[in-house]
Amino acid sequence: MSRKNAFYAQSGGVTAVINASACGVIETARKHKDRIGKVYAGRNGIIGALTEDLIDTGKDSAAAIAALRHTPAGAFGSARYKLKGLEENRAEYERLIEVMRAHNIGYFFYNGGGDSQDTSHKVSRIGEKLGYPIICVGIPKTVDNDLPITDNCPGFGSVAKYVAVSIREAAFDVASMAKTSTKIFVLEVMGRHAGWIAAAGGLAAEKDGDAPQVILFPEIALDEKKLLERVDRSVKKYGYCAIVVSEGVKNADGKFLAEAGTRDAFGHAQLGGAAPVIAQLIKSHLGYKYHWAVADYLQRAARHIASKTDVDQAYAVGKAAVELALKGRNAVMPTIVRKSDKPYRWAIGVANLADVANVEKFMPRDFITKDGFHITEKCRRYLSPLIRGEDYPPYKNGLPQYVTLKNIAVPKKLKAKFEVKT
Amino acid sequence: MSRKNAFYAQSGGVTAVINASACGVIETARKHKDRIGKVYAGRNGIIGALTEDLIDTGKDSAAAIAALRHTPAGAFGSARYKLKGLEENRAEYERLIEVMRAHNIGYFFYNGGGDSQDTSHKVSRIGEKLGYPIICVGIPKTVDNDLPITDNCPGFGSVAKYVAVSIREAAFDVASMAKTSTKIFVLEVMGRHAGWIAAAGGLAAEKDGDAPQVILFPEIALDEKKLLERVDRSVKKYGYCAIVVSEGVKNADGKFLAEAGTRDAFGHAQLGGAAPVIAQLIKSHLGYKYHWAVADYLQRAARHIASKTDVDQAYAVGKAAVELALKGRNAVMPTIVRKSDKPYRWAIGVANLADVANVEKFMPRDFITKDGFHITEKCRRYLSPLIRGEDYPPYKNGLPQYVTLKNIAVPKKLKAKFEVKT
Repeated sequence: MSRKNAFYAQSGGVTAVINASACGVIETARKHKDRIGKVYAGRNGIIGALTEDLIDTGKDSAAAIAALRHTPAGAFGSARYKLKGLEENRAEYERLIEVMRAHNIGYFFYNGGGDSQDTSHKVSRIGEKLGYPIICVGIPKTVDNDLPITDNCPGFGSVAKYVAVSIREAAFDVASMAKTSTKIFVLEVMGRHAGWIAAAGGLAAEKDGDAPQVILFPEIALDEKKLLERVDRSVKKYGYCAIVVSEGVKNADGKFLAEAGTRDAFGHAQLGGAAPVIAQLIKSHLGYKYHWAVADYLQRAARHIASKTDVDQAYAVGKAAVELALKGRNAVMPTIVRKSDKPYRWAIGVANLADVANVEKFMPRDFITKDGFHITEKCRRYLSPLIRGEDYPPYKNGLPQYVTLKNIAVPKKLKAKFEVKT
Repeated sequence: MSRKNAFYAQSGGVTAVINASACGVIETARKHKDRIGKVYAGRNGIIGALTEDLIDTGKDSAAAIAALRHTPAGAFGSARYKLKGLEENRAEYERLIEVMRAHNIGYFFYNGGGDSQDTSHKVSRIGEKLGYPIICVGIPKTVDNDLPITDNCPGFGSVAKYVAVSIREAAFDVASMAKTSTKIFVLEVMGRHAGWIAAAGGLAAEKDGDAPQVILFPEIALDEKKLLERVDRSVKKYGYCAIVVSEGVKNADGKFLAEAGTRDAFGHAQLGGAAPVIAQLIKSHLGYKYHWAVADYLQRAARHIASKTDVDQAYAVGKAAVELALKGRNAVMPTIVRKSDKPYRWAIGVANLADVANVEKFMPRDFITKDGFHITEKCRRYLSPLIRGEDYPPYKNGLPQYVTLKNIAVPKKLKAKFEVKT
């Protein structure tokens, strides 16, 4: 294959380490200038490809690109946008080809979660379906840790570490206050339908009585009576109770707690508030004073407390994606393969996008204790290595120094504009 | 003064560095064994003194005491309990004296905020009023930064750093997502009636356009129209808007936002939700998709991202308190004195408890911009040194290693029990 340019885009919710993958892609491509010309990034993900809004990453220095490794979120902008099937929206694919042809793009790197790898898979087939030769490699990323085949997903380890550290710290706080004040602390975390992030909170509990004493998973329908019993037992035994609740927890009727009739000051249904619902439930039945926190974006942006394992793996899958592309491997995604738990050893593997697209990996039931309120030893063995190691960003004047790239646009070559409905 | 034992207690809301002050007290006392015998800590603060529930800190090793320096929250338990005046509850003071006499306590160290220093002040006068000789020294602590005389309060710098780091990180996230998804991010922070913590978020904005674009202070009544204009301008100019809102923000009628009619699923007034109220206000008027976070205890327990300046100062005031006591100084509190801004230099000073008790320090109006939505250069100059430096705790298996002391009780010597209503 002659020298071609590469396209790289970030997709879906960003993470503390998706830029480390970008760093891996760009640094590796720069080492292969004989094969890969420019690396163009899509401004706001795939939207940038469709609207011919490409960023010339070559305009940023080696130092700036290296700083991506310690910078959270998506340096080029991400997008929540899923390509439809070829039959449903052929125009989008034709436009993609037009843009790629105009800019001599032969490599397509797509950094995202399940939906995004579905898009990667579709793009990987346009050579066969529409006659435009492309090598498309997906790069795994999702805090939800729900991609199949790969042992874990870059982005997850750092959220996991943030949640475990945060619940440990907040529990020390509530334990101090419990005698005369707050006895219940509830931390709400992300994860949608999968309890991986909530489970990570369980790592903070290393011995009997350690916080969190209760974890509420989206996989387990809330049993209010059992929850109240367990909370009360914890307060009576340890003086307090620290709880991690997944945003996706549902009640017995299958309704999200966060939507269970809560109204805000304007009368709108209030979303994203599973923590206050749980706190208030406990207060109204047991009378204990509570505090609650909703970490929201703080958890997935918390590069300051990123897991070194996660940063290393995020970089490695970016690097591996370019190496796979250079070997001519189309329609694949690098994966993390676990070689052993203790000591933790991992390597890079390869999955076919066809096997990744639209498959969700759920928490195995045997990762959750029988009573449904905590994690098992098996789960702990799986999760623990993923939060290991610290990888602090540089600081100046007390603040982490994250890079903002120049993001200089590549001159447009096409006359036609393309409208994307976002 | 002959050899006496010392009493130390933590009071009020705990912080990431109050244990660093405890470490300063205990380590310094251990260096003066000729003058200070045991250091007894009150289990759950002053409650421990009243109920004769004393902890013998001598039972913990030098390594365990040293680890207090990097451990958040109150290692001996804190209490929200304010001693009444001598006239109103003479029995409490008589009991205190009884306990102190029984345990040969001649030094009384009280580590807390405004209310607590009022208690210190009352205790400092029992020599004169009730004839029990005591040297009482207050030790400043409060995340709210509202103690007078001292340039700043230990505990505040670390919360300030957490808030500045967190809003910077979350803003990187929302900026990445803004094209197709979230455009508004609202972070709710502590601080009650004082905007110090919210102001600290402003440190993340180092140049025009940097997040946070908007700060809402409790000192400035919310002007919804102006807020909406400003948010809209930020979204149109930068693509998104990151907002720090103090839990204590009030509307034009003087009502807390967090209480402004919000009802939860159980029909109870919902507290601690200024962030969702602001987010929903913006959504309903401007239509922008939002995310919000409530950091709550996470912010004041976040020892993992503590300010080195803050840790050093917290230790220093603990050490200074013992040194003042050894000089026979009763009814005083060590303070932080700022010697210069650039380079930042500070020293330990002394204030009289009579001047500290029940005086609140508010944010000067000229620390807030005229429009009421950000901090001024003057404020930045004041705040910036307080978040400088990192002081990471040790980690094992990816988790910070915080110490839990043995907290072995001193055998009781009194027969009478004392009931404390908490």
